[in-house]
Amino acid sequence: MKTQKEPLEELSAGGKSSGPTSWSRVSCPCCISRHVEPLVLIQLSENVPLITKQWIMSVISAPVKTGCETATLGAQLLVHPGEDMKGDMIVVAAPRCTLLRVTEDLGLCKIYQDGNMTAFSYEDKDNFCNIEDMQRFLTLAERQFIIKHELDSMRALEDQRIPGIPAPKGKLKARERILQKLEKVGVIRNITPLHDQKKLTALGKQWYSQKNLWGQPLDGIQAYFGGTIAYYFSFLDFYTLSLFPPAILGMFIIFFLPSINFSSENTTASESTQAKEDNDQPSVSSYVVQAVFSMLWSTVFMELWKRRSAALSYRWGTFNLAEEFQEPRPGFHGEIGTNPVTGRLEPLFPDWKRRVRIGLVSVPVVGAFLGLVVMGMALFYFFERLVSGWHKSSNSYFTVALLYLPSIAHIVYTNVLGNVYRNVALKLTEAENHREESSFDYHHTTKVLVFTFFNNFAVLFHITFFKEDLGLLRKRLSSLLIVTQVVNQFTEVVVPFLVDRFMSNSERNLKEDDPEVDHLQAQGNLPAFPGLFAEYIELLVQFGYLSLFSCVYPLTAPLLLLNNLTEIRTDAYKLCKLFNKPFSAPVGNMGVWQAAFEVLSFISVISNCWLLLLSPPVKDLTQDAGLSSGQVLVFAVIVEHVLIGAKMILAFIIPDEPDWVRIKREQIEFHSMQALKKQRIKSIQVDDTLPLKDKL
Amino acid sequence: MKTQKEPLEELSAGGKSSGPTSWSRVSCPCCISRHVEPLVLIQLSENVPLITKQWIMSVISAPVKTGCETATLGAQLLVHPGEDMKGDMIVVAAPRCTLLRVTEDLGLCKIYQDGNMTAFSYEDKDNFCNIEDMQRFLTLAERQFIIKHELDSMRALEDQRIPGIPAPKGKLKARERILQKLEKVGVIRNITPLHDQKKLTALGKQWYSQKNLWGQPLDGIQAYFGGTIAYYFSFLDFYTLSLFPPAILGMFIIFFLPSINFSSENTTASESTQAKEDNDQPSVSSYVVQAVFSMLWSTVFMELWKRRSAALSYRWGTFNLAEEFQEPRPGFHGEIGTNPVTGRLEPLFPDWKRRVRIGLVSVPVVGAFLGLVVMGMALFYFFERLVSGWHKSSNSYFTVALLYLPSIAHIVYTNVLGNVYRNVALKLTEAENHREESSFDYHHTTKVLVFTFFNNFAVLFHITFFKEDLGLLRKRLSSLLIVTQVVNQFTEVVVPFLVDRFMSNSERNLKEDDPEVDHLQAQGNLPAFPGLFAEYIELLVQFGYLSLFSCVYPLTAPLLLLNNLTEIRTDAYKLCKLFNKPFSAPVGNMGVWQAAFEVLSFISVISNCWLLLLSPPVKDLTQDAGLSSGQVLVFAVIVEHVLIGAKMILAFIIPDEPDWVRIKREQIEFHSMQALKKQRIKSIQVDDTLPLKDKL
Repeated sequence: MKTQKEPLEELSAGGKSSGPTSWSRVSCPCCISRHVEPLVLIQLSENVPLITKQWIMSVISAPVKTGCETATLGAQLLVHPGEDMKGDMIVVAAPRCTLLRVTEDLGLCKIYQDGNMTAFSYEDKDNFCNIEDMQRFLTLAERQFIIKHELDSMRALEDQRIPGIPAPKGKLKARERILQKLEKVGVIRNITPLHDQKKLTALGKQWYSQKNLWGQPLDGIQAYFGGTIAYYFSFLDFYTLSLFPPAILGMFIIFFLPSINFSSENTTASESTQAKEDNDQPSVSSYVVQAVFSMLWSTVFMELWKRRSAALSYRWGTFNLAEEFQEPRPGFHGEIGTNPVTGRLEPLFPDWKRRVRIGLVSVPVVGAFLGLVVMGMALFYFFERLVSGWHKSSNSYFTVALLYLPSIAHIVYTNVLGNVYRNVALKLTEAENHREESSFDYHHTTKVLVFTFFNNFAVLFHITFFKEDLGLLRKRLSSLLIVTQVVNQFTEVVVPFLVDRFMSNSERNLKEDDPEVDHLQAQGNLPAFPGLFAEYIELLVQFGYLSLFSCVYPLTAPLLLLNNLTEIRTDAYKLCKLFNKPFSAPVGNMGVWQAAFEVLSFISVISNCWLLLLSPPVKDLTQDAGLSSGQVLVFAVIVEHVLIGAKMILAFIIPDEPDWVRIKREQIEFHSMQALKKQRIKSIQVDDTLPLKDKL
Repeated sequence: MKTQKEPLEELSAGGKSSGPTSWSRVSCPCCISRHVEPLVLIQLSENVPLITKQWIMSVISAPVKTGCETATLGAQLLVHPGEDMKGDMIVVAAPRCTLLRVTEDLGLCKIYQDGNMTAFSYEDKDNFCNIEDMQRFLTLAERQFIIKHELDSMRALEDQRIPGIPAPKGKLKARERILQKLEKVGVIRNITPLHDQKKLTALGKQWYSQKNLWGQPLDGIQAYFGGTIAYYFSFLDFYTLSLFPPAILGMFIIFFLPSINFSSENTTASESTQAKEDNDQPSVSSYVVQAVFSMLWSTVFMELWKRRSAALSYRWGTFNLAEEFQEPRPGFHGEIGTNPVTGRLEPLFPDWKRRVRIGLVSVPVVGAFLGLVVMGMALFYFFERLVSGWHKSSNSYFTVALLYLPSIAHIVYTNVLGNVYRNVALKLTEAENHREESSFDYHHTTKVLVFTFFNNFAVLFHITFFKEDLGLLRKRLSSLLIVTQVVNQFTEVVVPFLVDRFMSNSERNLKEDDPEVDHLQAQGNLPAFPGLFAEYIELLVQFGYLSLFSCVYPLTAPLLLLNNLTEIRTDAYKLCKLFNKPFSAPVGNMGVWQAAFEVLSFISVISNCWLLLLSPPVKDLTQDAGLSSGQVLVFAVIVEHVLIGAKMILAFIIPDEPDWVRIKREQIEFHSMQALKKQRIKSIQVDDTLPLKDKL
């Protein structure tokens, strides 16, 4: 096979048709093509010896199944040494065979000849649509993710030294992941998927131009940026649309339901001042309407999103991913053994050990940190009261300065705690040693999430349920909503935009006809995309404000709607222009975020119930009716349980996936059951026929 | 094929070798056997015309896939007209082919040639162990269930009349189930699987003889009585074993922890009398130890049972049942259409309609009935107080009689309500129109269960949390435990035993050499097995007493242990001797009962927390420490949440299935995924080769 070499097209920058600065050769005749598409850029550190770069390139282009002659498991990709002065770039592309093989490994579904989405199978490749054109068969994001996947799985087969790197750092143990090692010792600075400027411009036009105010090109985003990012924008889109009903209700309540002033003859003097303070306080009916509506709305919203999410995962061919049958994630370690399910040789780690670590180490540690947050808050309130007491009694300049001390100490404490916690959460999750990337993400995100959520809402809950001061809650909520929105939009977009415009002007001022290599160089120098965590948590906190507390501040939903409409565009702009293109795995759902939103929507029932109970109009009503506080409490508990019941019934009635997706899924299940039986017979028949052939 | 008739062995009772009183012929050469095993007895009503009996026999023996010439879908079974005077019996047996075909349809797993449990496939049958001997390959219970399954699926293919039955009753619509119809119009009185006296005697010896006090022959039970019954006894066995730790703790607390008399100088006069009344009241440490222990115990118990249950389902080959791919249950109705998953023609009913019916009809109706229970209890207490007030003030004979009135009225009310509810629950579940038998059972049992549970525990909860009278709770609990045990054992065993001995003596006094037909007749006349519902609910209520309230009455666990040790034997005796053998489907778990026990074990955390808080020693302690009731409440809520957290962590750490079962399951999943891909290629290749053959 290796003899059938044919000339490959060079990178447009390179002029020479052979020698060290051309694409590596492919070993497989079906992969030979006139056009090689550069997909991923590996940036080496400066001063990496040429011999190391050549070794890396040879490993990347080495076949996956090596015989005994080589010491490494390659990635079977195409490499190009780049063309710049510094020699610190490697451009990677993928031959057709590798792309198709990994598509099967990942469990991606593609359109079969009968029009159904079907798990791709290499042996059966000719029956899939668009198989002749890789650029149509796989999306850009998928092709780039496949390269990343293959690079990650490069591995040493025996103990060896990385050429050009001194011994202690450059030692590779058997089965060690090569890419991880190179990043750890600092040889590789950065791996980034390359933008396709033409596609990007087209996508941007559809996405954040002034013409298109409603809707986003979700399929385009999925194709260009990949699964996780497409899911984020789909959710944002759906969420924004869902904000219309509560926003309309909120506006209606503000403009059409007149505020009733409760400072009538029934209330005492202190309550009357309180009521005057909260002059714009909504009436009892608006409280009830808002609370009940927001509970039902959050349930219906989440249920409908689940259906949409299932439909999207079918549309994007990711409803059948079976991560547990793939190779484990790079950080996974354990004793080498045969995976009893797939029969592959890989590290094994018993599940019960992981569970014990989660249950007996992670959970208590996280709990302790949450305790520290609460303790910090308690100490803050304690010292604040103490200091303001001193100030009242002495009223000196010294105590004025002291007044700020608790706040400052609390802010410092919170920040330090947050930073320590982030490291601890990562370490804990690593120690849990998850086999699948998705499971690692799930546990890591959950840890960070619980803490962030606690930090964000602890104060609000304290104001609501301990201080029982709804006026303060309303003020706090409105300032949070307005201030965080302005700050977020500013830090997320304006600052990077300005930096991008004025600081790195020289590097980015490229024209279409500039050499390709300069474009590559420019891309490599953008900051790395910080991930979706911050974006999701922003949405979650928003959703929390809305579903937990919105009944005290009806403007929440309109403000959020306004925020989201700009958020979509700014996030899109940011992603397209201000950062490196990120790798984005094909996924079948939002992962842990789905669960987080659901938990929040559950808590909202409880929160709304107590808010209702605490609200001054309801309090006055119960006092007028002559109910004791015990009776009101029992009543509230009953209402809470009825509402939770109603929520669960609603969630039950709305199925989690549309019928057509369920049927497709069950079809696949049924047919694989049938196929397994058939296959057993076939394999036996083959066994039976072999001796026959031998006889002949 | 039909020409190859060979003589089949007759029922030992029948002497004639041909004519109408012999086994029907089989159409398939592989099924011809020297010995036909009678498995199921169909008893017709008296006065059923011979022509009807002959028609039923012809349908049962008709092949499943009929051409256009017949009007019914048969069951492809063997029938024998019986030999008795009245002519009201049909004995049914199954040919090998039918047994094997249905084994595949049910998704049963059997031992493959490689030693693994593998889903049976008819085409691949020769590679399964013991395939040559049906009596070893399938258990007796499985063979009988298969016959029931096939009888249930007999169906009219076009509108017709049942011969011998007058028109309005005897009309069969197209696609109507024949067996259902015959039972409805009263032609069939009873269908019962036949006992195998030799096996039954052997099983009985192992099971409830005096030699074998510990352990039950679970595999034997599964083989003879079938899945659901074997699961019940496995659970009973496991539960009894698990009762040892709490029983030992209970005994230890009673004998070694001295009761502390709290009527010291701190308590007021009324509390002192209270304390004297509850003289045997446990100390505070025993309260805490019991409450915490019973919470942890109930969690560990349920988690370990889940593991055991998973192991059993593998052992018994029922871990791969795919009921959703089978024919729908007999009561299922809907528009006829093609099942999009399996491609079979069958009634279809949209899932969302079912969900809407459950959510908007069933749940509110059940809720209303629960409300009626609570209302009844409230009215009872109200009138009781009223009447005792009258009695105190007037003290006449008339008011003495009146004193009994509220109790009597309440008992009548409860009974009437219970009976009405049972009918309503059945009607509701039927209206929900479940496709699968297991799902029907699940929803039906849940409805009855919730109501029964409410009825059993509402009074105890009322005593505990409204009256806050732990002395009364203790008395009530002890009397319930002792009285219900005695009553249950008596009504469940002694009464049927006596009835059996003295009333039906004549029919049962059969000897080994009596004609077979008399044995059959005798079996048909036993009462029908009432099902496992009552047995399970007894265990559940027991478990409730233990996990919810045991900390106030440490003797609970020892008493239950004693009860269960006898319960196992009496249940076994009852099942073997006093009732007809029931049909019992192969199942992979306890179904809804699993969930019920789990829910109860969850509620137990909350219950134990509040019991602890209410217990006099703890009350005294908090009063001594000078805590306000609000502070105690907050403290209790925190303790409750910590304990729920601990319970969830514990449940998480213990995996639901043993690793080896998980691996087997994942192996099957993985291989069917692979097989599906392979099969697609194969089927394409076959398509490609067909024209080739045609050309040749």
